[in-house]
Amino acid sequence: MTQKIFVETKTATLFSEQEPFIFECGASLPEITVAYETYGELNPAGDNAVFINHALTGNAHAAFYNSTDDKIPGWWDGFVGNGKPIDPAEYFIVCANLLSSCYGTTGPTSINPKTGRTFGMDFPPTTTRDMVRVNKALLDYLGVKKLACVTGGSLGAMQVWEWIVQYPDFVEKAVNIAGTAKGSPWMIALNEVARQAIYNDPKWNNGKGEFTQPELGLKLARMIAMITYRSQAQFWQRYARERVDESSERYFNFDNWFQIESYLHYQGTKLVERFDARTYIYLTKAMDLHDISRGFDSWESALKRIRASVLSVGISSDVLYFREELIELTRQLRELGINASYREIDSIFGHDSFLIEYDKLNPIVRAFLRQH
Amino acid sequence: MTQKIFVETKTATLFSEQEPFIFECGASLPEITVAYETYGELNPAGDNAVFINHALTGNAHAAFYNSTDDKIPGWWDGFVGNGKPIDPAEYFIVCANLLSSCYGTTGPTSINPKTGRTFGMDFPPTTTRDMVRVNKALLDYLGVKKLACVTGGSLGAMQVWEWIVQYPDFVEKAVNIAGTAKGSPWMIALNEVARQAIYNDPKWNNGKGEFTQPELGLKLARMIAMITYRSQAQFWQRYARERVDESSERYFNFDNWFQIESYLHYQGTKLVERFDARTYIYLTKAMDLHDISRGFDSWESALKRIRASVLSVGISSDVLYFREELIELTRQLRELGINASYREIDSIFGHDSFLIEYDKLNPIVRAFLRQH
Repeated sequence: MTQKIFVETKTATLFSEQEPFIFECGASLPEITVAYETYGELNPAGDNAVFINHALTGNAHAAFYNSTDDKIPGWWDGFVGNGKPIDPAEYFIVCANLLSSCYGTTGPTSINPKTGRTFGMDFPPTTTRDMVRVNKALLDYLGVKKLACVTGGSLGAMQVWEWIVQYPDFVEKAVNIAGTAKGSPWMIALNEVARQAIYNDPKWNNGKGEFTQPELGLKLARMIAMITYRSQAQFWQRYARERVDESSERYFNFDNWFQIESYLHYQGTKLVERFDARTYIYLTKAMDLHDISRGFDSWESALKRIRASVLSVGISSDVLYFREELIELTRQLRELGINASYREIDSIFGHDSFLIEYDKLNPIVRAFLRQH
Repeated sequence: MTQKIFVETKTATLFSEQEPFIFECGASLPEITVAYETYGELNPAGDNAVFINHALTGNAHAAFYNSTDDKIPGWWDGFVGNGKPIDPAEYFIVCANLLSSCYGTTGPTSINPKTGRTFGMDFPPTTTRDMVRVNKALLDYLGVKKLACVTGGSLGAMQVWEWIVQYPDFVEKAVNIAGTAKGSPWMIALNEVARQAIYNDPKWNNGKGEFTQPELGLKLARMIAMITYRSQAQFWQRYARERVDESSERYFNFDNWFQIESYLHYQGTKLVERFDARTYIYLTKAMDLHDISRGFDSWESALKRIRASVLSVGISSDVLYFREELIELTRQLRELGINASYREIDSIFGHDSFLIEYDKLNPIVRAFLRQH
């Protein structure tokens, strides 16, 4: 039996009145608090660090356990940990809750010192580039001189792309999984219907006044998203046409759910208990605005900045970030002479595969990290 | 310049107190009114008829024009009409508004003679089999002895499958496009989030009391569905990352939509003006319950009943009814010795291709109808 290893979520307060954090939109805040975890030790050269970017509803707790009460370890424990590809025996691993999230880092749910109330929708619109710039400040604060690797899946992968364009000399290797260098209109469409689910909830009240969680709206937003995180093949395999109540007399009742409906409702309710609707709006908007070429002369001039070795991992059944986009991106990078490769996880688990298919993901990333 | 041809939507009142229509769920109604259109003439043998099954928000008006005010012809005018694969010069073409819809056929928006108010959610749960049984009664009433062809796309295709299992000797050929023989959990999931969008609208009021259209809810339901009717490639091609307002000072504003968002809102609003939320619930539930094997000993025993020649047309980019399901169904039919073939529309227009890609669809169906 393996002993549970316990880790602590710490916080750092970065920036100052004199050197505030300036968002891409132009707004600024004098202080940003960042919640983060670290595993392993930074070497004297400060260049054995790995930064982990989390996805939409993730947090700083990537691996191990926070307390004896925890029934499950951190969200990427299958990929990060002793004997895993991102191993604290080798690396100084940092995972931070991203800007605008609701797990300890400053965002719309934080108290606005000017009003004494939560920022809410007065929080500055945030971009993936803002997130990465805050996390760069965190790494400076921690004494990191260079990232041996930066990685993440989904929204985490989008940040990986910003890292290697914004800080080309700071990153050695980049592993992006199921996430692209600019948001697709497909993703924007799916994010917008999720937001509308929240906006339509009367409790949302246009985001004005005292905040009350729009539970039904956030639940529905999550239900929509959960469909796009898996695949039709996986739904067939796991749920098929099974009913919650298989009795024939309730066959035609509208409230006799299919198991797949029950699954979505369960997942929706679970998110409402642990997430905030305002953060959901801010982070999905950040995904929509995501475009590594913003502010550069051209798409190519942004890509040309990249010096890291780039591994893009696509998922065969991903219906949110289609494999074709990563294949095309890899082609573009290679054409520019950048060390880029594409590998694929062949799975029916869809977008979520990066959180499930460790038997397939880990060997791919291990091989990439071993390359010189 | 081609002259516009005008057609009329007629109604027939079918069944009676003595011989009521009995729904699969066991409920019954003494009268069912059916709205329908016909094009062409029935031959003396009564065997040159083609029945067209429409999709979720369709109606009986498949082709030509109803009035001089009409800016566009019927919903399948590219496929049905003079010189088209379903040609009134050759066939007696019938299209009927399906049971539970809101375009003239009896459904939840009809007046319940017992109460003098609309049925609303007291209308019996309806299945694709119920729809087909009502339409069979219509064809009997019209003197049709045999269908030379039965066809439809999406929910229309689901009804095609019920036709050939329920009335094996009545159908010569069947063309189902982008629709399957039983609802997939993927489709059920997408239908359920659309329904929840309606249920979450306070105007829905649990479907109780005086009905008020839950406009925001129905709009959102449609927005969700519209995403699944196209494809990510088509969204890239048509909308990419274009904004409604491209001015840089509004770049970060949450209310400055991307064009794809504007498209979805426009489509959602349009449906609210022409459709009813109660019908949306009933028809999506019918799709979920759709299973041609219900009541038979096995899946195979249902398929074995089919005597029609079956052409299944899949769409390469369909993310709602995946091509794989139709390929597998065709394989099963052939294994049972049924004359079945699969053809594919290679298109980026996704599920909607059956309403768009006539250059690709029409030759496929023409060739199939010419076969003996």
